Amino acid sequence: MLRAGLTKNRLEAFSDGVIAIIITIMVLELKVPHNPEHGSPGLADLRPLLPEFIGYVLSFLYVGIYWNNHHHMLHATRKVSGGILWANLHLLFWLSLIPFVTGWMGESHFAVVPTALYGVVLLLCAIAYWILQTCIVRVHGNESVLARAVGKDRKGKLSPVLYIAAIGLAFVSPWLAAALYLAVAMIWLVPDRRIERAMGDASDSPGEAP
Amino acid sequence: MLRAGLTKNRLEAFSDGVIAIIITIMVLELKVPHNPEHGSPGLADLRPLLPEFIGYVLSFLYVGIYWNNHHHMLHATRKVSGGILWANLHLLFWLSLIPFVTGWMGESHFAVVPTALYGVVLLLCAIAYWILQTCIVRVHGNESVLARAVGKDRKGKLSPVLYIAAIGLAFVSPWLAAALYLAVAMIWLVPDRRIERAMGDASDSPGEAP
Amino acid sequence: MLRAGLTKNRLEAFSDGVIAIIITIMVLELKVPHNPEHGSPGLADLRPLLPEFIGYVLSFLYVGIYWNNHHHMLHATRKVSGGILWANLHLLFWLSLIPFVTGWMGESHFAVVPTALYGVVLLLCAIAYWILQTCIVRVHGNESVLARAVGKDRKGKLSPVLYIAAIGLAFVSPWLAAALYLAVAMIWLVPDRRIERAMGDASDSPGEAP
Amino acid sequence: MLRAGLTKNRLEAFSDGVIAIIITIMVLELKVPHNPEHGSPGLADLRPLLPEFIGYVLSFLYVGIYWNNHHHMLHATRKVSGGILWANLHLLFWLSLIPFVTGWMGESHFAVVPTALYGVVLLLCAIAYWILQTCIVRVHGNESVLARAVGKDRKGKLSPVLYIAAIGLAFVSPWLAAALYLAVAMIWLVPDRRIERAMGDASDSPGEAP
Repeated sequence: MLRAGLTKNRLEAFSDGVIAIIITIMVLELKVPHNPEHGSPGLADLRPLLPEFIGYVLSFLYVGIYWNNHHHMLHATRKVSGGILWANLHLLFWLSLIPFVTGWMGESHFAVVPTALYGVVLLLCAIAYWILQTCIVRVHGNESVLARAVGKDRKGKLSPVLYIAAIGLAFVSPWLAAALYLAVAMIWLVPDRRIERAMGDASDSPGEAP
Repeated sequence: MLRAGLTKNRLEAFSDGVIAIIITIMVLELKVPHNPEHGSPGLADLRPLLPEFIGYVLSFLYVGIYWNNHHHMLHATRKVSGGILWANLHLLFWLSLIPFVTGWMGESHFAVVPTALYGVVLLLCAIAYWILQTCIVRVHGNESVLARAVGKDRKGKLSPVLYIAAIGLAFVSPWLAAALYLAVAMIWLVPDRRIERAMGDASDSPGEAP
Repeated sequence: MLRAGLTKNRLEAFSDGVIAIIITIMVLELKVPHNPEHGSPGLADLRPLLPEFIGYVLSFLYVGIYWNNHHHMLHATRKVSGGILWANLHLLFWLSLIPFVTGWMGESHFAVVPTALYGVVLLLCAIAYWILQTCIVRVHGNESVLARAVGKDRKGKLSPVLYIAAIGLAFVSPWLAAALYLAVAMIWLVPDRRIERAMGDASDSPGEAP
Repeated sequence: MLRAGLTKNRLEAFSDGVIAIIITIMVLELKVPHNPEHGSPGLADLRPLLPEFIGYVLSFLYVGIYWNNHHHMLHATRKVSGGILWANLHLLFWLSLIPFVTGWMGESHFAVVPTALYGVVLLLCAIAYWILQTCIVRVHGNESVLARAVGKDRKGKLSPVLYIAAIGLAFVSPWLAAALYLAVAMIWLVPDRRIERAMGDASDSPGEAP
């Protein structure tokens, strides 16, 4: 097992780098509209981009939420093992597919299969995050601040169920599925106060009051 | 509320990553000219790229200014809350649209609607920055160094007015609007000395004289 | 010779940045399928992307392994010389070609020459890593923790032999060659416990038990 | 004037980010060859990419040299002013154009004008670096370690002359100009030992012997 210091810093720095690139390259999917043959470019030229823009906003939210929660979880992490490094890379792998499925869902104007696949990737990201969380908790012990902070993890258990529901729903109405993806994002938008709260009680580092 | 230490570092690192990518992917919009069918490539092949280059310079300035001011503001930040994390992601979202509107404005050779939309995105970035600043000031209290440093924030109040003026002006003359965008950038080019000055008086960290 | 502190941090930060970009831009090779002329987009549209996806997974594994091992090696590094800086850039150069050969191998559906070339780049990465390791060991001395940790470096000696075998095998069956690339990745997937173990004995930094 | 601590760290982090992206996106210029209509893809398909590959190697060297020297210069920097922040952004601006001119020089197979323009951008990078160096030296005073370390700066004065010579030479023979660009890179490949040496004498930070 590795010491936390440098290892945790580089794990965070590398994850920040990959997540920053993922969140930013999605905007490359928004292709600049070419000049129309007659007349000058207007807002009408942006209309075909609207589904891609909606997909971009949704994915920006999701990647932002993952960065935020990843940040909170590692904030409470004291030790980093080889297993944690690989569980983290595994999470980054599934996150790295978000730009692809976002692009397909947007370009196909929320067609059935691309919208369902978007949910599949979100589901796999959630599973990968759960694996990473489990690895970290196991390294720190069930009595650790982190284990208590994660606690029952209701949100973490609810999300996969909702993703699966949305994947099924996509075959009925892709836009309803997209609305459900947005609803899950809204649930998560509130940062993980469980960890913040538990940190406040147990942290041994000096500083301002939490 | 989270402690400043690690949280602030990761917030800065992630923001630096996203801003670095935003400022650099804009150059991908400058497409390498294809070889002409007759004769060898010359400076004339770059002429159609001139509007895109001007847009690139303008946006590089703006993203650079945002990085600079973001840097100064976080330098004076002592505590980071969940709200600040989200206000920061919100700012990064609007900044991430700058490459798109820069590309459209440049490729359309500063047509009316793209040039106006460029101003709209600048306006939304300014509003997002103001929200972030307000969040940070609220967390630190009205008597904090930061609150005093931001003070009346004349530049922050003037810019949105000028953006709105430029958006209107774009429908008369896009190039005049672009000149006004440049003028606003020039106002900001001077780094935020208010914070530097206030920091100098109130900082409790040891070091060289400010 | 430079002090470790800042120099090592920036070396790590820069390497993390480049490796994070390499691992993420490969996903840009996975082009979003265009909408079919008849019917709606379905999973069949993803079938032509399957070889590129397999290539992406393989290269993600390799770049992840390099990040992981690079991380462990620098964790044990105490001094950084100019030679180490250049050996590191040399490694980053060959790693930066992985997206290109991955794209060619995938798009050609694992044709003979692209699959062999993929192995050539892996071989050159391995050689560059070995040069970097040798530079670091030389700076630290043969009696250093690092030198003892690297020890006989059996994996480091086996991999090039297997890459050369796979390059030859590509001319018989590219898919067998790809399977061999995957096998080598599997050997490396286990993080370099030699260094972790030796660090545990010799580290002089305070902290939790290793 | 700002304190060195955080400011310098973020300046380095941001510069590292931008330089890492610049050095890596150049590889996107190396477009994966499309499958030939007859027969399977072979090394012959890579032949048209050779000039672009040569350009990539040359620019990778240059950007690597800039990172290396930037790293050494900031290592010796104790104070960061607003002027230094802007001089640094100015340097990053010209560096960000290297991928564009590299792509044009490579795709045009080292035609006259693109090869000359490549030298113009190198010249502007060198001037921007000199401005940054001058800003830093001025802030630290002529008697500082940094000022003594930079000393006569023979390499810094020689390079612009050689770039101008190469720009002229491009109109006679672009390949000779490219050879001269490579020669200048070779001169710089040796890291800036002046600063390393002066640091060794004057550094007040504890640590291993330099």
